[in-house]
This record gives sequence, C-alpha cells and structure tokens, in this order.
Amino acid sequence: MTIRLIGYSASYPTLRVIICLKELGLPYELEPPASYQSLKDEDFIANKHPFGKMPVLFDGDFRITESRAICRYLASKYQGKHNDIILIPKDVHKAGLVDQFISYELSYYDPPLSKLVYQEKFAKKFFNKDPDPEIIKQAHEELAKVLDVYEKLLEGKEYLNGEYSLADLVLCPGTNYVYGAGHSDLWDNRPNVKNWWSRLCNRDANKKSFEEIKSFWENN
Amino acid sequence: MTIRLIGYSASYPTLRVIICLKELGLPYELEPPASYQSLKDEDFIANKHPFGKMPVLFDGDFRITESRAICRYLASKYQGKHNDIILIPKDVHKAGLVDQFISYELSYYDPPLSKLVYQEKFAKKFFNKDPDPEIIKQAHEELAKVLDVYEKLLEGKEYLNGEYSLADLVLCPGTNYVYGAGHSDLWDNRPNVKNWWSRLCNRDANKKSFEEIKSFWENN
Repeated sequence: MTIRLIGYSASYPTLRVIICLKELGLPYELEPPASYQSLKDEDFIANKHPFGKMPVLFDGDFRITESRAICRYLASKYQGKHNDIILIPKDVHKAGLVDQFISYELSYYDPPLSKLVYQEKFAKKFFNKDPDPEIIKQAHEELAKVLDVYEKLLEGKEYLNGEYSLADLVLCPGTNYVYGAGHSDLWDNRPNVKNWWSRLCNRDANKKSFEEIKSFWENN
Repeated sequence: MTIRLIGYSASYPTLRVIICLKELGLPYELEPPASYQSLKDEDFIANKHPFGKMPVLFDGDFRITESRAICRYLASKYQGKHNDIILIPKDVHKAGLVDQFISYELSYYDPPLSKLVYQEKFAKKFFNKDPDPEIIKQAHEELAKVLDVYEKLLEGKEYLNGEYSLADLVLCPGTNYVYGAGHSDLWDNRPNVKNWWSRLCNRDANKKSFEEIKSFWENN
C-alpha cells in the first residue's frame, strides 16, 4: 500500500512526519501542494485538510492529518515491522509519559521555537518580510527558560523518556532549523540538553532528513 | 490503587480529566493546590509539574501531567474495565482519527475558546481585571469560523469520529463555560453542531460535571 505525504519538506511539521517515516523504515511519496495559497482552495479543504493545513498523509485510501497524530498513527500501525525502532512503548505507563512529553513540546517548547523558525527562516524568503529583532529576542529568552526545564528533565537520561521515542522525534525538525540559525547557544550552554541534541543529530533518520533539507535551502 | 488528581475543578483542563474519570467509572480524590501562586513553588515544580501547571494525576506512585495526555493514559489503562465506554477505539485507523480530532481541538477550537473562557469567566473573578470587549469580539468571530468547519465535519455523524470518543470529551468543559456565558449562538446557529452539543450535554459524566461546576460558581 503506497504512503503519500502531502506537504513541503521545508515546512517542519511535514518534516516531522518524514523523519517518522524514515525512523520506521517506511517508503513514501512526497507530493508538494501546487502552491502555499492552494492550501485554502475549495478542493484542498474538501479532500485534504478541512482547515487548509499540511501535512496530510494517505495510507492507501485512509487519510489522516496533523503531524503529531500522523506520527502516532504510523508508530501504532507500523513500528517493529520493518526494523526494531519503537517510537511508542507498549507499556501503558511509558506510553503515557511519551504523550506527556509530546504535550510539553507542543505547549511550551514549540511556541517560542515556531516564532524563531518563522522569523529566521521563513519571513524574508517566503513572505518578503524583514525579521523582527524584538520578537526574536523575546522568543529566544522564552525558549531559554523552557530549555532550563528540559535540562532538569534530562538529568541522568539519554532521552526524554529514558529510551528514544516519539517524544524526542517531534521536536527535531524545528530544533534543527533554530539551532542552525544563530541560536545554537540555547542548546550548547546546557550540558544535558547539548548531549541529548547531539545524540538526536546522530540518528540516521535525522542525519538524512537534515541533509535533504539543507540541500533544499541551498538550491531554492 | 488510589487515583489522586491535583487541580481546581474550575480550571477546565482539570475538569477535562474529571469528566474522563467519570466516563470510565473511576473513583478519584481531588486535591486542590494551596493557591494558584503555589503552582510556581519549588516543591510543586520539583514534585508535581515541571512547568508549574495543573492538572497532575497520581495513579498510585505513577505521576502524569497534561490533561489530554492524562486522559489518553486513563483510557488506555482503564477503558472497558468498569463499564463499556470506549474513549479510544482499538482499531488503529479509528484511533488515529481520534488523535487527529484532538489535534483539531487543540490547534483550532481551543485557542479562541480559551480566550473567551478567560475573558468571560476568569478575568474579573480571579484576576480582578475587566473583560476586554475587543478580545471577546475577535475570539467569538474566530470560533465562529472554526465551528463552520465543525458543522461540515459533523455532517451525517452523531459524534466527531462517528461514535463517542475522547475527541468529543476533550472540548466539553471549555465549551460548557463559553456556551453558558452569552455565546450559545455559536453552537445553536449550526444544526449539526447544535445536535452534537445537545447529545454531549446529555451524557451522564457531563451532566454531573456541569452540575458540580455550576454549584462551585454559585458558592464561590
């Protein structure tokens, strides 16, 4: 059954799903939308995503949207089938904590991170707007406070939930963008966070995805 | 094993977990924090929630935070054990779509809803601030657009995922607040949404929870 992923790899929620597919050893076809504006077309809204967003995944005829929900679905259905990587543990308590850490990512880590991604990577290139130094400063400070908490959460652990899981995966693509856009001190100044990020960067799925996305930015 | 829930029932993420516990037929003890300020105390940060938030659930010695993650954990561990209510279907595709709808709630439905809850219910009572009519107007309009999408999502269905699930449960406590605070037209003007909300209000767990919370507001 063919897996089709609708989205741009430069959009980090789409890249989140790409990393998940690579981790699970799943082949897929990436289908970029005709244009960013086309996400709001009647056809896209009716047949892809009701709120006009990406990514959208088709697994055969089955359609599912929202990057974290797609990753959970892929892990639930396919993990352990093509390799031995487990993104969501079978144990109900461990799985609960993966969910909890994904919620931390979504509620605390991602809001300042996504502002930095927009300002540093997208504002000028895709929207012809100058980055706002004040927003960048505030988001940097906000993310610093969040990473102070992560520094404690990672004490004595290799990954957020002990073993590698979806809890770590979900924050890789956005972190890669911001780390490489002049904010590496946020991670490097905190020993546990630094070692954790280094471990994540050394995973094959991330290495391949980050190389591909680097080449996209160099050629576009 | 005793389930302890740390939080205020007036806080709708805490009420989300209370509704989940009632749906699953699970007894629990509610432990309100000493004060709202105490959530930022060193002890609370170290032993309850690293970002100083509620709710926090203890299932025996096992601790888990973040309301939607707590609900997923409770459903995964306990559904079907005390009654026949299923919040997360066993089928991987159906479960995937429950996750997707929870993400719609979190990403599109809750942002304007939470603004209305704060302005209409909390601003004056807990923070001695006058509600801001402009924020209320904008949030009302934003939620109206979101509910236009839900009207289509609910076409021909009794609940978001066909059968009742966690996808519906997560938005009940916030909706109950805003519906009763002068914004009922948002739901009542859309036939599918109106019938869906009426169905949800008739569920025992919601009826009991909404009564309890009504009595809280009348007595505090």
